[in-house]
Amino acid sequence: MFDGFFPIRLRVRYAETDQMGVVHHSVYPVWLEVGRTALSHAAGMPYIEWENRGVYLVVAELVCRYRRPARYDDEVTVWSRVRELGSRRVVFEYRITGPAGDLLVEAETRHLAVDRASGRPTVIPPELRAPFETALTLPPVGDPAPATPRPAR
Amino acid sequence: MFDGFFPIRLRVRYAETDQMGVVHHSVYPVWLEVGRTALSHAAGMPYIEWENRGVYLVVAELVCRYRRPARYDDEVTVWSRVRELGSRRVVFEYRITGPAGDLLVEAETRHLAVDRASGRPTVIPPELRAPFETALTLPPVGDPAPATPRPAR
Amino acid sequence: MFDGFFPIRLRVRYAETDQMGVVHHSVYPVWLEVGRTALSHAAGMPYIEWENRGVYLVVAELVCRYRRPARYDDEVTVWSRVRELGSRRVVFEYRITGPAGDLLVEAETRHLAVDRASGRPTVIPPELRAPFETALTLPPVGDPAPATPRPAR
Amino acid sequence: MFDGFFPIRLRVRYAETDQMGVVHHSVYPVWLEVGRTALSHAAGMPYIEWENRGVYLVVAELVCRYRRPARYDDEVTVWSRVRELGSRRVVFEYRITGPAGDLLVEAETRHLAVDRASGRPTVIPPELRAPFETALTLPPVGDPAPATPRPAR
Repeated sequence: MFDGFFPIRLRVRYAETDQMGVVHHSVYPVWLEVGRTALSHAAGMPYIEWENRGVYLVVAELVCRYRRPARYDDEVTVWSRVRELGSRRVVFEYRITGPAGDLLVEAETRHLAVDRASGRPTVIPPELRAPFETALTLPPVGDPAPATPRPAR
Repeated sequence: MFDGFFPIRLRVRYAETDQMGVVHHSVYPVWLEVGRTALSHAAGMPYIEWENRGVYLVVAELVCRYRRPARYDDEVTVWSRVRELGSRRVVFEYRITGPAGDLLVEAETRHLAVDRASGRPTVIPPELRAPFETALTLPPVGDPAPATPRPAR
Repeated sequence: MFDGFFPIRLRVRYAETDQMGVVHHSVYPVWLEVGRTALSHAAGMPYIEWENRGVYLVVAELVCRYRRPARYDDEVTVWSRVRELGSRRVVFEYRITGPAGDLLVEAETRHLAVDRASGRPTVIPPELRAPFETALTLPPVGDPAPATPRPAR
Repeated sequence: MFDGFFPIRLRVRYAETDQMGVVHHSVYPVWLEVGRTALSHAAGMPYIEWENRGVYLVVAELVCRYRRPARYDDEVTVWSRVRELGSRRVVFEYRITGPAGDLLVEAETRHLAVDRASGRPTVIPPELRAPFETALTLPPVGDPAPATPRPAR
């Protein structure tokens, strides 16, 4: 639906709701993280490999604009893309849509590469950087698969 | 793998880890809830319908035995079944397994049906009860589908 | 420390850390909420009274800038103030500081008053509005009390 | 109120509620952890010192019995004590009470000491063990201090 964004479907958990009867606003940042993890898998370099190679991608800034609430048991889709790729930083951009494709949240996270041992900012190594350069130009995707696959009986 | 249990796969979220480098123990009860929600869908009466019909299924007791830790980005499977079905209560039983099928957690939750309006215990209405009676005798299932389906490109 | 901001101390919970060994970034929005709840108490109109009177103060936008990480068992202070007060909206501004008074996070949340029954934006009633007008001009405060008070033995 | 238990007060956070309008059951295990952290401080050996000395106290089993729900903005008290102390394991027991002193939750957690480097069970070193032996015989305490201390203006 959003060109260049990678989609992943999630089913809203009961624990993610609050007493307003909708998803609590602090849950969406967790979903954004699920979105960029899925994007890193699709790009061929899962984020877990970053940490295995001694690089943390630390969140430096988060912006969330809440348009409409998600509700328990809804299937929502998190759409993620790499918007900017610097020598030491990455900016991700997101859309979250509801079951009917309606826009729930627009968001952005800014990250800094940090050396795991020293705790200091570091240049992103080429082998981690290249897959995200590819991700910058991902071809349009179709609809994501459903969030809660049924088992083959 | 576990006869009579309904499986659902989840991918471990970064936010679910703690500084021990593994999933925090308070996260597993959230996954159990995901498991029984999936079971209620499979049984043909999603839990959301319980609340729509004015019945809450409140957690009265939780027992978790932690065998091995789950880790970030692991695909884990939550296996759920209805173990007992009383006139006002339901007991669920669970197993959580890791990527290699190793047992991570054994658990049990006991629930009480509560009238949404009065807040008092209530008899489970037949239309909510029947699907769980069926769930008591679910046929063995095969392997669950993967947690993070790739989109059809 | 920050003039016009209301401080509340918290002790970092183990469950709030992640496998980087620091507080997960999705936890700070929860602390901001604790901060504005405390501010609403200090202003004499606890947020719970808003909901009791049929008005939700919904989060429309969240901006968090992460400067330094908080760690398990740290005492952190959340400083909150009302920055803007419109007829239907409120903007809060925050600082979070660590045990040594070092700046950890700067943040802002934008809220919309919503009628609980209709779900539509609504004008903030005078009795809810007045305490926040006072809060706009809160006198400077001293150091907040410790996060984990010891019991009187 | 409960002899031999160490009390700590908490104010219920909005994010801790769910769409039933009460605290979600997965939150109480987090509060139990806050309770035993506070107990470890009171006993003179904060849990953070365990990890600094290379010992994790891993949760092996959790039992929670939910009697009554806590609600947003309530002040609740978590009462914790060391019930058993083995060479490699510790059993904690808890009560959680509401604003009126009513019993909300009874709980128990079983822990295993694990060597941080090897990941294997280990004997609890004497310097970590001794404070908990003292904690087994803590004198009765009075009422805990309030959860949200007001700043000295």
